[in-house]
Order: sequence, then structure tokens, then C-alpha cells
Amino acid sequence: TKRYSITLLPGDGIGPEVISVAKNVLKLAGSLEGFLSFPFPVFPLFRIEFSFQEMPMGGAALDLTGVPLPEETLSAAQRADAVLLGAIGGYKWDKNEKHLKPETGLLQLREGLKVFANLRPATVLPQLVDSSTLKKDVAEGVDLMVVRELTGGIYFGKPRGFGTNEKGEDIGFNTEVYSTHEIDRIARVAFEIARKRRGQLCSVDKANVLEASMLWRKRVTAIASEYPDVELSHMYVDNAAMQLVRYPKQFDTIVTNNIFGDILSDEASMITGSIGMLPSASLGESGPGLFEPIHGSAPDIAGQDKANPLATILSAAMLLKYGLGEANAANRIENAVLDTLNRGFRTGDIYSTGNKLVGCKEMGEEVLKSV
Amino acid sequence: TKRYSITLLPGDGIGPEVISVAKNVLKLAGSLEGFLSFPFPVFPLFRIEFSFQEMPMGGAALDLTGVPLPEETLSAAQRADAVLLGAIGGYKWDKNEKHLKPETGLLQLREGLKVFANLRPATVLPQLVDSSTLKKDVAEGVDLMVVRELTGGIYFGKPRGFGTNEKGEDIGFNTEVYSTHEIDRIARVAFEIARKRRGQLCSVDKANVLEASMLWRKRVTAIASEYPDVELSHMYVDNAAMQLVRYPKQFDTIVTNNIFGDILSDEASMITGSIGMLPSASLGESGPGLFEPIHGSAPDIAGQDKANPLATILSAAMLLKYGLGEANAANRIENAVLDTLNRGFRTGDIYSTGNKLVGCKEMGEEVLKSV
Ligand SMILES: CC(C)[C@H](C(=O)O)[C@@H](O)C(=O)O
Ligand SMILES: CC(C)[C@H](C(=O)O)[C@@H](O)C(=O)O
Repeated sequence: TKRYSITLLPGDGIGPEVISVAKNVLKLAGSLEGFLSFPFPVFPLFRIEFSFQEMPMGGAALDLTGVPLPEETLSAAQRADAVLLGAIGGYKWDKNEKHLKPETGLLQLREGLKVFANLRPATVLPQLVDSSTLKKDVAEGVDLMVVRELTGGIYFGKPRGFGTNEKGEDIGFNTEVYSTHEIDRIARVAFEIARKRRGQLCSVDKANVLEASMLWRKRVTAIASEYPDVELSHMYVDNAAMQLVRYPKQFDTIVTNNIFGDILSDEASMITGSIGMLPSASLGESGPGLFEPIHGSAPDIAGQDKANPLATILSAAMLLKYGLGEANAANRIENAVLDTLNRGFRTGDIYSTGNKLVGCKEMGEEVLKSV
Repeated sequence: TKRYSITLLPGDGIGPEVISVAKNVLKLAGSLEGFLSFPFPVFPLFRIEFSFQEMPMGGAALDLTGVPLPEETLSAAQRADAVLLGAIGGYKWDKNEKHLKPETGLLQLREGLKVFANLRPATVLPQLVDSSTLKKDVAEGVDLMVVRELTGGIYFGKPRGFGTNEKGEDIGFNTEVYSTHEIDRIARVAFEIARKRRGQLCSVDKANVLEASMLWRKRVTAIASEYPDVELSHMYVDNAAMQLVRYPKQFDTIVTNNIFGDILSDEASMITGSIGMLPSASLGESGPGLFEPIHGSAPDIAGQDKANPLATILSAAMLLKYGLGEANAANRIENAVLDTLNRGFRTGDIYSTGNKLVGCKEMGEEVLKSV
């Protein structure tokens, strides 16, 4: 038996509901490893067992401990084999000062886990193509991956803060900064991913204006020589925002900085029309990865058993694949999700007539049947 | 007769073609002022006469003078009543060093004219709703205006450049910085515009992460008290990128910083599906405004009489309305464009079966007939 320890961070809003469902799916998928290939006798050698540790994070942690990322939570996460996060934030903490915002806890977690590579797939499933606001022929077949730099750039650059300019006016300022090392390592992650996908990498920057982007473009171009099998192209961020709407199928893998990645990956996810379906992975050089659905905490439907747990379930699949190297168990979960959709089960956000409307828990039970 | 001097900057690629068409439309519309209201006798008092001065800019200026914005061009523009720009840039100059890029000339022109407010309408015309990649019910009726801060933020912030960090690695860096004064004046422009539209202003920022955005949100909120009739909301930039795809009709007027405005206005323009139709205006406190189509120089179709001149013609209408206060002549041009579309004329970029395919010049002649 292989044993992995997973830190669960349910967080706020619908977070606890979707995490509890995904936990059950992980457990079952792990226990079935070794079964499928060797139905009898069972080889317990291949079985995966998880030990789960639930820790407070975000608004929940603020209410409990006064900070959005308690030290115990960070150190538990650092010691785990992987971290699964639900969602954070809510109206209640929106007016908090910066260091007491749930979002700040998330940024501290990314920094503390050194997860510099954020993988955000945006895939239009044939079963859900009608959920997209894009015309069917534009949306169908979209299958792209945004690789976003996650621990650098304007999110963390110094100097930052408030001050006064030479005219005596108040100013607010931030620094967009990238080093060769930071660019090289995210570029390599992106090239590796593109290589395993369709072999096309589009690097997005604003090199016609920003020095930080000029260095970005230069280094990504340099790293490309290590990956002759991957076709590299460059695109300005304003054009990329247009091209995602015009013809999203042109993209395979996109690599970009922290802030452009924040914007473009959200745009790409909305193009699929089903953000309740989209997972994400954040990875470092070594150490545990952080896995989370891209949707937010949805405080308006929290506690009503209406949330779509599939994005978190698919995040658990990414956890197995990218976090633990357990591709087989990951595929099992992904197939279970597709099977459940094929059997017609839909939560409210992806419901269309002719299908079966279910809540969060029931969707989880149906996925368990398909695992 | 009212006389205005206009500096024309044809620029590169399709720039000269579309400028020459728009110039004729401006002339005719000006000469007709005073006619419509008083058919006989003509009151020459109301007639508008233009003197046009053509100056080199962008790649054309680089080839001619070695710099993308010659001093003579800038000073002619500064002395004019308004400036009409075609488009700049092309493959030929793509590898130039930063200070020798056509784009740098454009940034210098904006700075030199102090045009801090960039107005970019994105409207889906009923005649062209099918050009959008969005579903008809999502695209139809979209009518929004992006007010982008144009002479501040990360585009111009200092310090900027290249250097070495404490680990000895090369770095590239830029500064995102806003002062109260810069935010207040763009906010006022946006509130004024929202007031004349549907009374709704959405300010887009990343105040959950960036100090520059926190100050932005604070000042926009403060200025709102001067405009009790305008409803102000705030949205994070990643969410705005999503909402533009999900439900663009929710937006009336958007105000945002330079870089977010660059990205979101391009995204919004692509949502209309007809960027060959979209004009823009850049305005300062006083002095001439800068008016240009939002499309680029399209070097692949340059010189082939294929370009859509309507965006430049509509930019000329914005020039009349926002630059010279000649709303009547502006409306005349806008109506002429609609009439020409209603009569079925289409350039290649907006062509659909059943319509009449025309080139740049012929489209211009048809608009002249409708003026
Ligand atoms: C909550 C916020 C700080 C965060 C970000 O901007 O990175 C979120 O938008 C995301 O994309 O994960
Ligand atoms: C050409 C470039 C410098 C410019 C910008 O980024 O402002 C363009 O994209 C625009 O939006 O006008």
C-alpha cells in the first residue's frame, strides 16, 4: 500500500461542501488501485491510502484565529504530500484590511509552498458545449492549458505600497519584476506540458511596452532551444484577450506572467461556459502541490447543497496526476466524471433540459458509482 | 464658416488608405453643415471647413527620418485642433530596438498630447450581430464604452528597465503607479460619459492584490459623490474579463487603468465581432484630441484596397463630437455609416452572403452618398 498525506483546506462558502465530496472520491479511487488490473487476487501493494488532515484557511481561519493563513495551516500544508483547497472569501471579510483578507492568505500559501507554476486547463466537453456563450462551432473542441507564473511579477514585486510624489500627491505603486531564473523555470514547465499536449506553446507578454516583458520574451525564446519539438510563438496580451474570443481553438498551451495569467485564464475558463467544471494545479520545484477548483466560494449558494463538486473532483484528479504521479488513479476519476455527465447528471450551473438536476452531494454519489 | 485644422497621421499598412477615405467624408460632412437645417438660403456661418496637414508617423516616419515620431509631427499635432491617426506598425520594424519601434512613437504622441483619457466604444450593430463569435442573444444589444487611462500606470511608470537582483540574476522591471490627481481626472471623464449614457459606471481594478489599485478604488469612490446620478460599481479585472464573455450587456461604462484597459478594450472589441468598425478617441484636459480606429495596420492586406474604412470614418465622427464639439456633423457621419450598411455594402471583414462586397474606396464612396 502506498500512503499519502493530504492537507484539506475547505475554506469558505461552498468550499467545505465540495471538499467533502472530493475527499470521498479520492478515497475510493485510491482503494481501487491494484484492483482493475489484477481483479483477483488483489495486490495491496498498489493500493493507495490517504490520510487527510483538515486545516482552517481564508475567512474560516480569520474567524477562528484572526489571520487568513495560520502558521499551523501553512506548516501542515508544507509537510503534506499534496494540498487540496476548496475556495476562500466572502462578503463578510470584503472590507478587511489587506493583511486580514482571505485572498492574502491564499497569496501567502502560494508563496509558502513556493508553487510558482499554475496550470489551468480550459476544456469544452462535448456534453457541455451549449453552456458556452460562444457559438457552437467556435467553442467545440477547445482544449487549452494556461500556465501562469504564480509567485512573482506584480503580485509580489517590491517596492510596493503608498507614498507621495514630487508634486505632493498621494500615490499607490507596485513593481512588475521578473528575473531570468523565474522566467526560465516557468518556461520549462510550460514547454514540458506543451510537449505532452499538441506541441504548441504561445508565450503571452507586452514586450512592445514593458521591459519586464522584453526579458520574458528573450528568456522564453532562449529556453525554446531545449525543446526543438515544441513550436513556440509569441503574442501580445491585448491580442491574446481578443484571440481567445475570436478563435480559441488556435491555442494549445499558453505561458504568461502572474497578472496576465490571472486575467487570461479567467477569460479562457468563461469561454468554456462551465467554470464549475474547471480544476487547477499549482506546482513548485519540489514539495507539495496545491490543487483547487478555479471557481470561487459562491457565498450566495453556500450551505444549500447546490454547488457543482466536479471542479474539485477534477482538481483531485490533477492532484493524483501532477502531485503524486498517480496517473492511473487520476484517469479513473476523470473517466468517472465523464461517465456521470454521460448518464445525464447535472448541477444547476450546467443544467439543460433533458438532464437530471442534482445537488452537490448527489452528484458526488453518482461520481462514486462511476469510479 | 468655422475653420478647423486637422493633423492627419496616415502611418503604416492600411493607414493611408483609410485616412484618405475618412478625409473625404470629413470634408463633405463639414461642407454640409448649415445646409440641412436651412436648405435655402445657405448660411455659410455654420459651414465647417477643414485644413488638413499630413505628417509622417510610425514606421513611415522611421523610414523617412529615422525616428517613429519626428518633432515636426508632434508639434504639428500639438498645434492642430484635432489629430486623426490611421494605424502604425508592421513586420518590417518588429525587430527594432525599443526607441525605434513604431509603437514607441504612438506612446510618445499620447504623452506629448497629454491625452490621458482613451474612449473605446464597443457596440454591436444589429446589421452585424452575426459577425460576433458570441451567440446572438448574448451579443445583440451590446453597447458599452471603455474609458482607459492612457498616460500613466505601468506604461510610463518609473523606475523601469533592466538590472541585476541580489542573487546576480538579470531582471526586467516596470512600475505601476497612480497618483490621486491622475485617478481623479480619469474618473471624472468616466462619470461624465456614464451620465450621458445609461448612468452606470463599473470601475475595474485588482484592489485585492495591488496597492495602486487600492488607491484607484478609493479615489474613484470619492469622486462618485460628485455624481450622485451615476451608479458606481467595482469589479476585479479577472472577473471583468470573464463577465465580458458571459454577459457583456451588463456593462454600460467601464473605467480602468492603462494596462487593464488595453486588455479589456481589445477583448470587448472582439466581442462585437467587427473590429473593423470600432473607433477611439483620446482626450486631454485641453489641447487637441487624438482619434484613431482600434484596428491595426494589417500589413497583409495593405495597398490592396481591401481595408474597412468605417472604423476611421467613425473615428472622424468622434473627432467632430468629442474633439470639436460638432455633434451635428458627427451624427451625420454616424447615420451615413448606418445607412451604407443598411444598403448592404460590406468590406471583406464584415461580409456575409446576400450583401455587396466592396473595397475600401468603394465603401468610402458609398458613405459619401449617404452623408
Ligand atoms: C483571489 C486572488 C488573489 C487570486 C489571484 O489574483 O491570483 C484569484 O483571482 C486567482 O486567480 O486565483
Ligand atoms: C501599440 C500599443 C503600444 C498600444 C497600447 O498598448 O496601448 C495598442 O495596443 C493600443 O491599445 O493602442
